[in-house]
Amino acid sequence: MGCMSLLVVGSMAFDSIRSPFGEVERVIGGSATYFSLAASYLAPVRLVSVVGRDFPKKTIEMLSARGIDLQGLKVADGETFHWKGYYEFDLNTAHTVRTDLNVFRDFAPVLPPSFRETPYVFLGNIDPRLQLDILAQVREPKIVALDTMNFWIGKSPQLLREVIRNVDIVIINEAEVRELTGEFNLVKAARKIMGMGPGRVVIKRGEYGVLQLSDGEVFAAPAYPLETIFDPTGAGDSFAGGFMGYLASRGSAPLTEMDYRLATMYGSAIASFTVEAFSTERLEGLTLEEIGSRLDAFRALTEFRTV
Amino acid sequence: MGCMSLLVVGSMAFDSIRSPFGEVERVIGGSATYFSLAASYLAPVRLVSVVGRDFPKKTIEMLSARGIDLQGLKVADGETFHWKGYYEFDLNTAHTVRTDLNVFRDFAPVLPPSFRETPYVFLGNIDPRLQLDILAQVREPKIVALDTMNFWIGKSPQLLREVIRNVDIVIINEAEVRELTGEFNLVKAARKIMGMGPGRVVIKRGEYGVLQLSDGEVFAAPAYPLETIFDPTGAGDSFAGGFMGYLASRGSAPLTEMDYRLATMYGSAIASFTVEAFSTERLEGLTLEEIGSRLDAFRALTEFRTV
Repeated sequence: MGCMSLLVVGSMAFDSIRSPFGEVERVIGGSATYFSLAASYLAPVRLVSVVGRDFPKKTIEMLSARGIDLQGLKVADGETFHWKGYYEFDLNTAHTVRTDLNVFRDFAPVLPPSFRETPYVFLGNIDPRLQLDILAQVREPKIVALDTMNFWIGKSPQLLREVIRNVDIVIINEAEVRELTGEFNLVKAARKIMGMGPGRVVIKRGEYGVLQLSDGEVFAAPAYPLETIFDPTGAGDSFAGGFMGYLASRGSAPLTEMDYRLATMYGSAIASFTVEAFSTERLEGLTLEEIGSRLDAFRALTEFRTV
Repeated sequence: MGCMSLLVVGSMAFDSIRSPFGEVERVIGGSATYFSLAASYLAPVRLVSVVGRDFPKKTIEMLSARGIDLQGLKVADGETFHWKGYYEFDLNTAHTVRTDLNVFRDFAPVLPPSFRETPYVFLGNIDPRLQLDILAQVREPKIVALDTMNFWIGKSPQLLREVIRNVDIVIINEAEVRELTGEFNLVKAARKIMGMGPGRVVIKRGEYGVLQLSDGEVFAAPAYPLETIFDPTGAGDSFAGGFMGYLASRGSAPLTEMDYRLATMYGSAIASFTVEAFSTERLEGLTLEEIGSRLDAFRALTEFRTV
């Protein structure tokens, strides 16, 4: 069996963030950054993204030291993508103040030849046109998952539907699954998405956890009730990284419902560390032991049995 | 061992409700009605409330047929309490259009002598002054729980704090726990309430389930993801009824953390039936088998194990 490789395409960025707990300027962010760090604890990750000349060498070295294959990372002339936003006390909703795409504006992902055969593929939250480009370049992947956001649901609904038709798993926020389907009820909304093609819908609900639906199965995972949530940025991407990383770690074995549930719990466990600090700080130096303890804590959080 | 009795004090009402799924006029409602019906599947219930002459005899007979002791139900000259409200697509929030207190305005609950020694007591969402009156009339109860709402948090904060100091369990909505404590973080908010006296806080989160906190323990229960939620009215009171009913059903045995978790699941299971129909319709004719199956469904919903 052994681990299988996992490809991620998404953004790498500087984030400037204000939350009720503090403020940071130009810290490391981006969906591919969070995803690949989270997944790196479980499977070999191949990253496809673009940064500018201003992106710190030491971050690139840190990613590389975590075993992430950076052959698909382009360093382009210009500045790195910069997102500026804030959170109110309701940490579930990120408010964007400003988005400078910079080098990301001309991002045209080309897979290195060694990346074309990757069994697990995650299409991060980017232009559906680019997501389709990537799909055209990978050869017979085993599982493809995608994330998206309200911006693309509004701007490119047709293209987005075409991507969705061609993936196995949609990993998406609660508000966005409602916007995408026009259904408030999540069971109905998930069924609509499954009607488009994917066999599984994983709904991220922030502090309320995750709801996972597939044909005939529903799984509800709580978020870990933390006393100190500093910065929810990257929680969703860390979740997706842990989720896909766990699946890839299962190797060539057929995936069972219980595998998908454990994938959800690994994703939730890793995401629960991400929010404990700004940026990728907490995510850089995790240990498998810490992740395992958090998984045990999740089990203790939800367990009930007849006495 | 055997079951112990459970006392509930709260409202009985007519509800006029509009939801995205329909509209009903003057159907049976009220916190004590939902609570006592839900609890009646698990323990002997003693009800203290007031209705007007216009309250249907057949509802009173139905409650009596479910074994609910109605010696504490006063039928007063005048009209029954009437609540008119609506729900948007977000079924978590009830919007009040109109409240006619009617006979409830002069409600001064007096316990029948046979009710004074009741080991389990639930103080439904009523004026904290009345909740204190009841507390003064019961003799050495084993467990007292209370519910309250934003109206009393704003209007009678001092009296409410005095009640809270004297109860064991606070069962309360997520928004209200935040309002009561001025803490957005639920772990911190629950700790503040426990600092006032109660050993346990049960936070109702609507479609997101329940979070239960006590000294050193946290339990997260999801709500059952239903495809057809017709009317969330009474869900919180049904939850509380199932919760307290299960505790009372354990008799004189010392209650363990697992008992409280199972109580939460019984409450959640029974509440999940309540929302499947308007008013108390679904709650009147449940069977223990149906409740048990829903409990199994909840277990299937949350279970994950290492393969």
